[in-house]
Amino acid sequence: MRLEENGYLLRIFIGEADKHEGKLLYEWLVIQARQAGLAGATVLRGIMGFGPSSRIQTSKILMLSEDMPVVVEIVDSKENLEEFLARVENAIVEGLVTLEKATVRLYRGRPRE
Amino acid sequence: MRLEENGYLLRIFIGEADKHEGKLLYEWLVIQARQAGLAGATVLRGIMGFGPSSRIQTSKILMLSEDMPVVVEIVDSKENLEEFLARVENAIVEGLVTLEKATVRLYRGRPRE
Amino acid sequence: MRLEENGYLLRIFIGEADKHEGKLLYEWLVIQARQAGLAGATVLRGIMGFGPSSRIQTSKILMLSEDMPVVVEIVDSKENLEEFLARVENAIVEGLVTLEKATVRLYRGRPRE
Ligand SMILES: Nc1ncnc2c1ncn2[C@@H]1O[C@H](COP(=O)(O)OP(=O)(O)O)[C@@H](O)[C@H]1O
Ligand SMILES: Nc1ncnc2c1ncn2[C@@H]1O[C@H](COP(=O)(O)OP(=O)(O)O)[C@@H](O)[C@H]1O
Ligand SMILES: Nc1ncnc2c1ncn2[C@@H]1O[C@H](COP(=O)(O)OP(=O)(O)O)[C@@H](O)[C@H]1O
Repeated sequence: MRLEENGYLLRIFIGEADKHEGKLLYEWLVIQARQAGLAGATVLRGIMGFGPSSRIQTSKILMLSEDMPVVVEIVDSKENLEEFLARVENAIVEGLVTLEKATVRLYRGRPRE
Repeated sequence: MRLEENGYLLRIFIGEADKHEGKLLYEWLVIQARQAGLAGATVLRGIMGFGPSSRIQTSKILMLSEDMPVVVEIVDSKENLEEFLARVENAIVEGLVTLEKATVRLYRGRPRE
Repeated sequence: MRLEENGYLLRIFIGEADKHEGKLLYEWLVIQARQAGLAGATVLRGIMGFGPSSRIQTSKILMLSEDMPVVVEIVDSKENLEEFLARVENAIVEGLVTLEKATVRLYRGRPRE
């Protein structure tokens, strides 16, 4: 797989429990990224957060909440990321999406299976 | 809540166990962000780290340490983030704070409760 | 330790289980960063990911995999990060490395031990 040097980083901040068509939204987004042939994706899980729906989520005993934040991160060309966002954005009912410049300095893999 | 397109990402790297006025610093920062009316916040917990206090923190059995790194991430306008930083920076006794450009492509919520 | 305002953020995306000379690669990278006198490092562990080796990693019961993604993040000057990358990049057999601009707004420590 190729990845040009002038990369961008797409970050999708949603709730871990958010759903889309019966599936977990973050899993659906990663699978969509894979099917779209994007260069990759990484999902980070947070321990606390709040967003436009204005509620503080935390897993501390006092305020038990299962909906921890997750961030789906995808590095690819700006063009590919904009195309992908146009395709999936209706599934993101609540949350935040940002786009940042990120120069790609290395991108290597070993094909498996 | 509104969030302009020309967004910035503030990242505050501190220790999970760091305290401020008897509270966990990262929790205090998120609550301050909420009270300041910022667009949101996400806390990520790391598994290893070192910083200006020059000690490698890790949870591996050989070097057990409870003070894992956390990163408090806030996306908002540059103006709001600078104002927020001026308000909280004295509470950050040790750590790192960075500010990056991050274009906001989507910001949606469903008001609850 | 000093850190100039014109900082950059290096992010190394690899597998948690990736090895280098018998050690875990992410641990080796953090130790190398420390020995090189870099300003710090933070390792974040993800819950799902795929990359150039084109396999979706997840810890869900259906597709059990131990190789979760990790991201090693280092903030320092562009010069120091480029020098560090030249030194360690041969150890990164598969994965992604990005470099982003990140203005340093605060960097404080309390020397210990
Ligand atoms: N402006 C922001 N800065 C940082 N993180 C954000 C921001 N907006 C949203 N998030 C993250 O996205 C998550 C999901 O947003 P949303 O579902 O609208 O929030 P809520 O947690 O209020 O229900 C939040 O919990 C938070 O972790
Ligand atoms: N330059 C840096 N790059 C990446 N992460 C950093 C940097 N500086 C500090 N950090 C993160 O912030 C955490 C807290 O910093 P500090 O309390 O000063 O470090 P220490 O872990 O040495 O006690 C570190 O453990 C590390 O995860
Ligand atoms: N373009 C990308 N965007 C986001 N994350 C990526 C990208 N490329 C690689 N990664 C992350 O780096 C990890 C390691 O990459 P690699 O070992 O090549 O992938 P794989 O998981 O396919 O074996 C991936 O699991 C993924 O989390």
